[in-house]
Amino acid sequence: MDTRTSPEPITFGRTPDGYVHWKLSFDGPVATLVMAVQEDHPLRPGYRLKLNSYDLGVDLELYDAVQRLRFEHPEVRCVVITGALDRVFCAGANINMLAGSTHSFKVNFCKFTNETRLSIEDASALSGQKYLAALNGVCAGGGSELALACDEIVLVDDGNSAVSLPEVPLLGVLPGTGGLTRLVDKRKVRRDLADMFCTVAEGVKGKRAVAWNLVDEVATKSRFAEAVSRRAKDLVASSPPRETNGVPLPPLPRKREGDTIRWDHVTLAIDRGKRTATLTVAGPAAGGPSTASAIRALGAAWWPLAAFRELDEALLELRHNEEEIGLVLLKTEGDVEAALELDRVLEAQASDWFVTEVRAHIARTLRRLDLTARSLYALIEPGSCFAGTLFELALAADRSYMLYDKDRPVAVAISPMNAGAYPMTHGLTRLSVRFFGDPETAARLAAEPRVYDPTDAEEAGLVSVVADEIDYEDEVRVAVEERVSLSPDALTGMEASLRFPGSETGDSKIFARLSAWQNWIFQRPNAVGERGALTLYGKPERPVFDFRRT
Amino acid sequence: MDTRTSPEPITFGRTPDGYVHWKLSFDGPVATLVMAVQEDHPLRPGYRLKLNSYDLGVDLELYDAVQRLRFEHPEVRCVVITGALDRVFCAGANINMLAGSTHSFKVNFCKFTNETRLSIEDASALSGQKYLAALNGVCAGGGSELALACDEIVLVDDGNSAVSLPEVPLLGVLPGTGGLTRLVDKRKVRRDLADMFCTVAEGVKGKRAVAWNLVDEVATKSRFAEAVSRRAKDLVASSPPRETNGVPLPPLPRKREGDTIRWDHVTLAIDRGKRTATLTVAGPAAGGPSTASAIRALGAAWWPLAAFRELDEALLELRHNEEEIGLVLLKTEGDVEAALELDRVLEAQASDWFVTEVRAHIARTLRRLDLTARSLYALIEPGSCFAGTLFELALAADRSYMLYDKDRPVAVAISPMNAGAYPMTHGLTRLSVRFFGDPETAARLAAEPRVYDPTDAEEAGLVSVVADEIDYEDEVRVAVEERVSLSPDALTGMEASLRFPGSETGDSKIFARLSAWQNWIFQRPNAVGERGALTLYGKPERPVFDFRRT
Repeated sequence: MDTRTSPEPITFGRTPDGYVHWKLSFDGPVATLVMAVQEDHPLRPGYRLKLNSYDLGVDLELYDAVQRLRFEHPEVRCVVITGALDRVFCAGANINMLAGSTHSFKVNFCKFTNETRLSIEDASALSGQKYLAALNGVCAGGGSELALACDEIVLVDDGNSAVSLPEVPLLGVLPGTGGLTRLVDKRKVRRDLADMFCTVAEGVKGKRAVAWNLVDEVATKSRFAEAVSRRAKDLVASSPPRETNGVPLPPLPRKREGDTIRWDHVTLAIDRGKRTATLTVAGPAAGGPSTASAIRALGAAWWPLAAFRELDEALLELRHNEEEIGLVLLKTEGDVEAALELDRVLEAQASDWFVTEVRAHIARTLRRLDLTARSLYALIEPGSCFAGTLFELALAADRSYMLYDKDRPVAVAISPMNAGAYPMTHGLTRLSVRFFGDPETAARLAAEPRVYDPTDAEEAGLVSVVADEIDYEDEVRVAVEERVSLSPDALTGMEASLRFPGSETGDSKIFARLSAWQNWIFQRPNAVGERGALTLYGKPERPVFDFRRT
Repeated sequence: MDTRTSPEPITFGRTPDGYVHWKLSFDGPVATLVMAVQEDHPLRPGYRLKLNSYDLGVDLELYDAVQRLRFEHPEVRCVVITGALDRVFCAGANINMLAGSTHSFKVNFCKFTNETRLSIEDASALSGQKYLAALNGVCAGGGSELALACDEIVLVDDGNSAVSLPEVPLLGVLPGTGGLTRLVDKRKVRRDLADMFCTVAEGVKGKRAVAWNLVDEVATKSRFAEAVSRRAKDLVASSPPRETNGVPLPPLPRKREGDTIRWDHVTLAIDRGKRTATLTVAGPAAGGPSTASAIRALGAAWWPLAAFRELDEALLELRHNEEEIGLVLLKTEGDVEAALELDRVLEAQASDWFVTEVRAHIARTLRRLDLTARSLYALIEPGSCFAGTLFELALAADRSYMLYDKDRPVAVAISPMNAGAYPMTHGLTRLSVRFFGDPETAARLAAEPRVYDPTDAEEAGLVSVVADEIDYEDEVRVAVEERVSLSPDALTGMEASLRFPGSETGDSKIFARLSAWQNWIFQRPNAVGERGALTLYGKPERPVFDFRRT
């Protein structure tokens, strides 16, 4: 029995033939992704998706397309994103949807759209799939932020079409999908010009948009198609050709039994009473494929891709459908040696395009885990296989508890995959973050892959707590009960701070500097109060602000 | 007539003989700063400063002491911070004060305490004044964060005294004075240990505090004084001896005339109706001192120190006493050549300790300007002297407007002081931030100091807008009116994002990642609602949380 009380759960799997809001087509190495939002198909009732504005449903299809292009269409070297409407490319995130959503939904929506924009940049950097924004009309707010995530931007020059970020002047909130960061950090727009751009509701068009580096080129209506096609051709030429046989991504098998969702390798068991979830990943079986061709024969059924696709979906389930679950207990099941054998294949076959894609997908999923605003405890118990790639789950956790039981062996293991294959958003490995104060130890551990029993793991500093069979259960129980009793907001801020020691990158600044500010603003009466700007958008009343500055 | 309607204004100047809450004493190269908070002397009525808890009044004295030690006591090479109470070092920021304060006051209070902690680290890095926290008793919350800002920490080992950050478990807010960042980034505490430390209200004491690197040493009560004295001696030995004749810092002269405050070189004119302030800095006179001894003879009256001490106070006035002023118009008055002459002296005498201190003070004041949550427009008009050091004001502004008037010359100028003397919080110069997309231009401009007329300044990209005498006034008026009409929250978040392209440092992470989260949490019902944890602290009721995670 499903004891959920929230609205109908969101589903996450999408397939191109089921896309409602996008059209994906192919012309050799160029794919075209046309935004054609059906205004009467919102994800939840209550608003209309006018003018190619988007909601989570639109973005879930975009996420699927970006993923699928990498696995199913490795021949693609340039993806053109354009719009199906006349004179409008995209009006950004739907305002009525935002104004009518809970704070936690808004924050999680923005986080997902941010991760999807980053997945576009990841596809460009790691898969050579270059993105070209072909702005065929007005491009506002989240539309501009989608364009900013692309490698190049062409804007139609029709006397009317502008790029704009009208969030500050019109809505009293921030461009929350990386726009501010990408303006100055990625496109390196001069900061005073960025200031002007972000405060002028109607945006900037024509030659000025090029002069300020907001777009790369403007082209008149009659020359627009040619300009887009020329740039697409150049982008293709800039990217080396790859494999032409893709690997299809079938829908993920899932079964719900009461409050438990089971995929093939991943199980998410919700305990609403305790506000905890147990997320269990079953490790690989021994004797998996070791050659590129054998791996390809398995395709999406190959364990690392299947398991991490499932884990990715489980994290989205948690974020969007289980808002009150405060603590996730991370478990693994399986054989340490088999997990290490799998890692040896991931390492040895790194030059194969498909293995490269699988590794990149694992890295993205682990980053989604790092950025999930839930407390994470790894429970390392008999029968677990926190080894190499799967040890990243323990490294991502806020704490790890390991059972020492002389009758039932438990181990964790470091593999070469812990040495750099899965960077965090801020560019560091989880192992180097764990030993941020002792980089020599981090380097030594990474350079000497091995298996650690509880005593060795504790001595090496690889786990938080080792407890014997007498104490373990109580220790974990108390730690769980304490954690779920604390303020969920304070935990979110604390975890966002402690999980990321060290440098920041443009990617991590989007989640740190920008998203934290956006969350703050999303909560302020000046935005969401009765007379706040977001609340009153589209209504005749003018917002009334409390002008005290903070 | 003062038209202010807010509570009695806060005053900022302090002198050691007027300290209420601290005792400053000297023993050769070791200064001792004893926290002895008078509980019945809060800055504003309504709470008692029990157990060495602090408010802005306590922190203003600390700020004064840190400043004064650098200028008046260059012989000091180690500052010991300890507490006057038995069994208690410091209980942190006063909870009743926080619970009873407005959101904007809380945020500005935290910002100031953060800047003061950073000024301690600045004194250590640039002046060789090493700070030693001698924790003579329980050290909680902001007390621990003060200790974390010191170079070394000794904790008494009496079976009771612990360091703790109980904000998350007890108050439902974050340690907001850099604690989370300094734990993992500065002291490099392993992140899972930091997680445990930050969620256990009673904190960590004794050997475990050393093992986790929360403190450098614990010493029994009988050996505590010896341990502190030994470490103080070692810190003195680690820092080269300096000048022994300090420069006294007299109180700043200020006059209030209606809504205008005048210091000798700085004027702050408030227009509450327009919600703007005009902040004018009068530049140096020609023919100032050029040798170290002549500069020393002037002491605190030397223009750059006097003007920037006044500017520093003006910024505090704005932040704490003028919360509704949304836009600051930055102006200068004086002679460009005289300003450049002054910069040549600042450059040529850089090896003199006093000039070093003055340069460091200018840098800190400019960073306070960058971090001031008000929109900043620089107005570059006839009679102004935005040259070199003073051009940093224009570079710090969100926008700059320059008048082109063929009858009245206006100029800006780059000097060698723009090339690195005044780094921003994130380590970059304001010139390199302005040309973040074009580092060659930034380097070339910095390497070729010169004067720019409006045409040249516009071509070089040094100002945002150049307008002639027909358009200038209207252009500025419209830009001002537009700015003050926008959501103050959205502007705060936008400016905090656009002002800091590029890398982050520990310092900037404190203001970016940590403070933004703290601001968010300070606004959340789980902290400040009727049944929030901060509201109910010390009362018999238990907080009631909305457990939805964001």
